[in-house]
Amino acid sequence: MNTEARLDFILRLDGLKAVERKTYPSGMNRAENSAEHSWHCALCALFMAEECAFPVDARHTALLMLMHDVPEIGCGDTFAYAEARAGAEAREREALSGLLAPLAPADASRLRELWEEFEAAETPEARYANALDRLLPVLHNLSHDGLSWREHKVRLEQVMSRLAGVAEVLPGVWALLKPRLEQHFAGAGHEQ
Amino acid sequence: MNTEARLDFILRLDGLKAVERKTYPSGMNRAENSAEHSWHCALCALFMAEECAFPVDARHTALLMLMHDVPEIGCGDTFAYAEARAGAEAREREALSGLLAPLAPADASRLRELWEEFEAAETPEARYANALDRLLPVLHNLSHDGLSWREHKVRLEQVMSRLAGVAEVLPGVWALLKPRLEQHFAGAGHEQ
Repeated sequence: MNTEARLDFILRLDGLKAVERKTYPSGMNRAENSAEHSWHCALCALFMAEECAFPVDARHTALLMLMHDVPEIGCGDTFAYAEARAGAEAREREALSGLLAPLAPADASRLRELWEEFEAAETPEARYANALDRLLPVLHNLSHDGLSWREHKVRLEQVMSRLAGVAEVLPGVWALLKPRLEQHFAGAGHEQ
Repeated sequence: MNTEARLDFILRLDGLKAVERKTYPSGMNRAENSAEHSWHCALCALFMAEECAFPVDARHTALLMLMHDVPEIGCGDTFAYAEARAGAEAREREALSGLLAPLAPADASRLRELWEEFEAAETPEARYANALDRLLPVLHNLSHDGLSWREHKVRLEQVMSRLAGVAEVLPGVWALLKPRLEQHFAGAGHEQ
C-alpha cells in the first residue's frame, strides 16, 4: 500500500517540471521550470556556504531547496513581483497538504517540515536558502540583459527591495552584484 | 576571486538544463532534461528509503543525486542502452574536472567526492542512489506506454538486466514493477 502510494507520488512530482517560471536559464531561450530551478538552488547551497554571513549547514539547506517549490505542483508559481503574492503562502500550504495526503504519515511529515522551515525563513539554513532562491533569477536576468525584468516592467527599486536578504546573508556576493545591477538598470530599455 | 568563480559556476550549471534525456516526464510530450531529473531523484531519495533493503542515510543520498549527472554539462548524456556506454565513466570524470577547475579547491573536492561516491556504487547510499536513478525512467516509460523503449527498440531483457540493482535494493518496489513490465512488453509494439 505504502509502496504503491510512493510510486504514484514519484509520478505526481513530475508536475513541477511543467511549472514555468518567469526567468530564462543562461544561454537558453525557454522559460526555466521549477523542478530544474530546485535542483539548481540545492546544488548551489553546497558551494555557496562560505559566502554566507553566518555559519550554516549547507547539506541541510540543499534539502530545504528540494522541497521549497513543491506546492507549485498544486497551485502554480507566483511571480516574485506579482500583486497576488500576498496569499501565496496559504495557497501553497493547502496545495502541499493535498499532495502529501496519500503518503505514509512519516514520509509526509518529513517533507512538510522541510517546506515549512524554508517558508518561515527563520533558521540560518532557511535564511541562506531564501537568499539563494532570490539570487539565482538575478544572475539569469543579468545573463539575458534583463529580459524577464523588461518583459514584466520590473524596476530597479523592486529588485533592490526583493534582494535585501541577499545583501544581508551573502554580503560578498552583494558587493559584486549591486554595482552590476545599478549599471544594468541605468542602461536603456527599462521602466524608470 | 572565489566569489566571482562561484557566480560563474552557478551559470555554468545551467548547462544541465539543456541536456536532454531519452525519457518523457509523465503527462508531458517533451524530453526530460538532466537537471530536473536530478531534482526528481534527489527528492525521491527522501521518501523511498523505507523501501531500501538495507539501512541508508536518505539525506546523504539526496546530495549524491544532486551531483550524479553534472559531468553531462561537459560531455552530454549517454543513453542507458547505448553501446558507447563503456567509456562513459572516463569521459564524465574528465568533463567534471574541467567544470570544477575554476572553483576553490575545497568546493571542488566536496562536489567531486559526491560524484565519485555515486559512480563507484559501493556505499549503501550510492547503491540506493543508483537504484533510484534506474527506477525513475522505468516509471516514466510505463506512464507513456513504453514510448522511449519503442523509439529506441529496447527489449524486455535489456530492461530487466539494467534493473538488477532495483530488484536487489528496492525489493518491494520490484515486486510491484516486475509483473507490470512483463505485462507491458507482452503487449504489441515492442521489439522481441
